[in-house]
Amino acid sequence: MGTFADDTAVEPLGQARYGAEVTERWTVLGGVPNGGYLMAIAARAMAGEASHPDPVSVTGHFLRPTAVGPATVEVEVLKRGRRLSQVAARLVQEGDTRLQLLGAFADLEVLDGPTKLDRQPPALPPRGETVDANASADEHGTFAPPILRQLDVHMPAATLGWSLGQPDGTGEMRGWCRLADDEELDVFGLLMMADAFPPAVFNSGAPVGWTPTIEMTTQIRKRPAPGWLAGRFATGSITGGYLEEDGELWDEAGDVVCLSRQLALAARA
Amino acid sequence: MGTFADDTAVEPLGQARYGAEVTERWTVLGGVPNGGYLMAIAARAMAGEASHPDPVSVTGHFLRPTAVGPATVEVEVLKRGRRLSQVAARLVQEGDTRLQLLGAFADLEVLDGPTKLDRQPPALPPRGETVDANASADEHGTFAPPILRQLDVHMPAATLGWSLGQPDGTGEMRGWCRLADDEELDVFGLLMMADAFPPAVFNSGAPVGWTPTIEMTTQIRKRPAPGWLAGRFATGSITGGYLEEDGELWDEAGDVVCLSRQLALAARA
Repeated sequence: MGTFADDTAVEPLGQARYGAEVTERWTVLGGVPNGGYLMAIAARAMAGEASHPDPVSVTGHFLRPTAVGPATVEVEVLKRGRRLSQVAARLVQEGDTRLQLLGAFADLEVLDGPTKLDRQPPALPPRGETVDANASADEHGTFAPPILRQLDVHMPAATLGWSLGQPDGTGEMRGWCRLADDEELDVFGLLMMADAFPPAVFNSGAPVGWTPTIEMTTQIRKRPAPGWLAGRFATGSITGGYLEEDGELWDEAGDVVCLSRQLALAARA
Repeated sequence: MGTFADDTAVEPLGQARYGAEVTERWTVLGGVPNGGYLMAIAARAMAGEASHPDPVSVTGHFLRPTAVGPATVEVEVLKRGRRLSQVAARLVQEGDTRLQLLGAFADLEVLDGPTKLDRQPPALPPRGETVDANASADEHGTFAPPILRQLDVHMPAATLGWSLGQPDGTGEMRGWCRLADDEELDVFGLLMMADAFPPAVFNSGAPVGWTPTIEMTTQIRKRPAPGWLAGRFATGSITGGYLEEDGELWDEAGDVVCLSRQLALAARA
């Protein structure tokens, strides 16, 4: 197994309960685990009870801060259909629900409907013309959260300028990404990767700071092909302190593998 | 009260349970109630238990078909914070959960964070240059679902061409909308209106037919100003029978009042 697979593994405890260990490797700042990482753990437990293997939509409501350490996921199957299972879950630490989820699961290897793609992949230069975010942090002495050390993220230089105090004003983060150490990303990894880029709002010119997620929904359309993913994350509407971040990830086969949207609180000036 | 307010009213039954009556006036086809209408009913019950009045994000998972007739909404408050309440709910008919929800509630009259809008309102001609969807259905004898008769919807002629067998190929529905009979729309009405336009996929060139929603999430940013709303709904990715529909509604004050996204099953050829 790889680090991500190990760090998101769940152990069946019986009665639709699963044990997990939240590790420090996927934290973002101050020891706070990345929200998408927690959704990946919970979704593995949900899949353990569903009649279908792949999450096609997972919504997580973040209720209380989660900590590094043991967690339990309690799963309730709401519906078992021919094509879909729908499942509720809660991730619990020390008796408190930290993250509440709803998800739909299907078999993404058995698709039998129309395909028509008007959406375009992110505009990205070849990887050789982009900047390795970890190397840039090392070179400039800027902050690299632990989760970034678990990833290979390559961004256009202008997209990464925010980390040197020069946001590009687009409200977008774009880049190539994959797990470090050549670990291949599975469908559950998409839930993490959809939340792993720096907040797109950091490139908007609005204040940079703590941007807590209230709710995040990720739709998964395909098990990703091996290799790199191309990601685009954008915030278009910051209103009264609330913002959305819309994301897309595309695989090397040229297919959109997931669409994400979260509601978060904007940092204060 | 107006028709929408009456038809989404909930009655407290005690112990965080609410009674409601699902009416035939908001059905789409074959007596099936509109999903956004059901979300509005459920959200009124959720707000009855939350410590904050306005939904800022509501996710509904559609588990089983809902019918016209009585329904009960069972609410569970997950978190009461200073700024937000987070709430789960289920809409039950005849002992079966039909719709399962998660929502975050806040007070949209008390906003104290940054605002920065890069998103643009939908490109729409003045209402006098658009076509009344109800009048068009009457003139051409095309199908107008009962919900349309509760609304004023005015669309550019090209956007409405799909109803005459001429989709414009954009995968978009755009138009002006409001409740009929000058009833003003409240925040709960936005949950309905975000699901009230014909599926955007009908304008894509993909097969037109039954497009059941699996999951829908609507973010609400503002109590809408009185008057018309400008709406834009778009489907960019139909993959293996799954599609998303992203929506925006803007009020006459020029503010984005909600953002929606749903995952639905595409119609077969």
